[in-house]
Amino acid sequence: MPRGLLIDLSGVLYAGDAALPGAREAVADLQAQGLPHLFLTNTTRQDSAQLAAVLAGLGFAIAPEHILGAVDATLAHVRQRGLSPYPLVHPAVRAAFAALARGTPDAVVLGDAGEGFDYASLNHAFRLLMDGAELIAMGDNRYFRGADGLSLDIGPFKAALEFASGVKATVIGKPAPGFFLAGCRRLGLPPEAVLMIGDDAEADVAAALAAGLQGCLVCTGKYRLGDEARCPKAAVCRDLATALATVR
Amino acid sequence: MPRGLLIDLSGVLYAGDAALPGAREAVADLQAQGLPHLFLTNTTRQDSAQLAAVLAGLGFAIAPEHILGAVDATLAHVRQRGLSPYPLVHPAVRAAFAALARGTPDAVVLGDAGEGFDYASLNHAFRLLMDGAELIAMGDNRYFRGADGLSLDIGPFKAALEFASGVKATVIGKPAPGFFLAGCRRLGLPPEAVLMIGDDAEADVAAALAAGLQGCLVCTGKYRLGDEARCPKAAVCRDLATALATVR
Repeated sequence: MPRGLLIDLSGVLYAGDAALPGAREAVADLQAQGLPHLFLTNTTRQDSAQLAAVLAGLGFAIAPEHILGAVDATLAHVRQRGLSPYPLVHPAVRAAFAALARGTPDAVVLGDAGEGFDYASLNHAFRLLMDGAELIAMGDNRYFRGADGLSLDIGPFKAALEFASGVKATVIGKPAPGFFLAGCRRLGLPPEAVLMIGDDAEADVAAALAAGLQGCLVCTGKYRLGDEARCPKAAVCRDLATALATVR
Repeated sequence: MPRGLLIDLSGVLYAGDAALPGAREAVADLQAQGLPHLFLTNTTRQDSAQLAAVLAGLGFAIAPEHILGAVDATLAHVRQRGLSPYPLVHPAVRAAFAALARGTPDAVVLGDAGEGFDYASLNHAFRLLMDGAELIAMGDNRYFRGADGLSLDIGPFKAALEFASGVKATVIGKPAPGFFLAGCRRLGLPPEAVLMIGDDAEADVAAALAAGLQGCLVCTGKYRLGDEARCPKAAVCRDLATALATVR
């Protein structure tokens, strides 16, 4: 039995701009129960504080300090390394990265820029990489389920820039083992005592298993029939409520 | 000694919108000399007829039938297979592909769409792939040298869509062996008797060698110091005139 949980947000608590059926009650039950947990997200259109506000709007009472997000982790990484970033990220988080820029960028930072992934911006990033900048990706997800269907996430654009430039990206969020381990440290638990629950068979579940955690795939969000084959050693549950019932 | 030549266009005859120094004279000399040759191009912003017109504007007298282009080869492939394409291509060649579309597309066709590579179009292509469409790429080049510097070509966007969807693309132009061999057939020569001259160490030169041709890398266009390491068995020449001098 796990002694703590890491829980993905998008596709597990909500999809597009709506809470998933039963998710609000499942989270409230979990909070009442007191099992240590943290929400671990590669969502890069908001930092933790903005995410908490979005979640509140969807009916979830989750404090920012219970969210470990790829945006905050990437900002910390850029600060710690003293890098000057070119942020190819969503407008909502651009200012936080732009505030760290000094002179010519020496790091291209990729988030889920959405419509911001246009040719001119990608080309600018590519030229910086060809001139020696490093490439930092907040995540490596293939796609997410948005309000109008499956949509391209960071991973494809990371793949594009890597292929064009020959520069290999450093990934900060999932599936990087360090991101899961940072979550375990925040919970004060060893990885083997922690269960990761997510809808991305690779970036959430297989990657958590690879980092030494337990894993559970939920069949909501971006889940498509057959995804379980990508994380054969994980538990599979219908949704968050069902997953939480197994650890009670 | 080669008995025929395949010659790349962009980066060998011209770069951006200007003829390269000495290239006009080199081509005129070649035409006077009579060595069988064909221009083999992955340029996908024009078909052969449009390319001949562009070349005329740059001072090259080259007939469309002396150009074997990835656009024409891709149109032929789509027609032959009876596919209904979704063309993510440059506006100048979009109509030719759109004319072949009937109902729901069953093939995403990638050309160098330039500014057309926006999030909405890439996402639309991705969703078609997830619904079972196949992926056809006119080329697989990483980048080209445009008027204002190195710019992303088809390859990175092919990599992005392949990564997102898990669908592997069929490449029609270089580096596909079939494209080089089609050029050799048009020349009526066996591959080993044909020399490919290009500025792309991989898509032009290493790929030609892999298809059984001879290869020569020219240090114009997108060439960057060290590129010769990507095609170690090829000749290396300063430019087209120098390359042609070696086969006289």
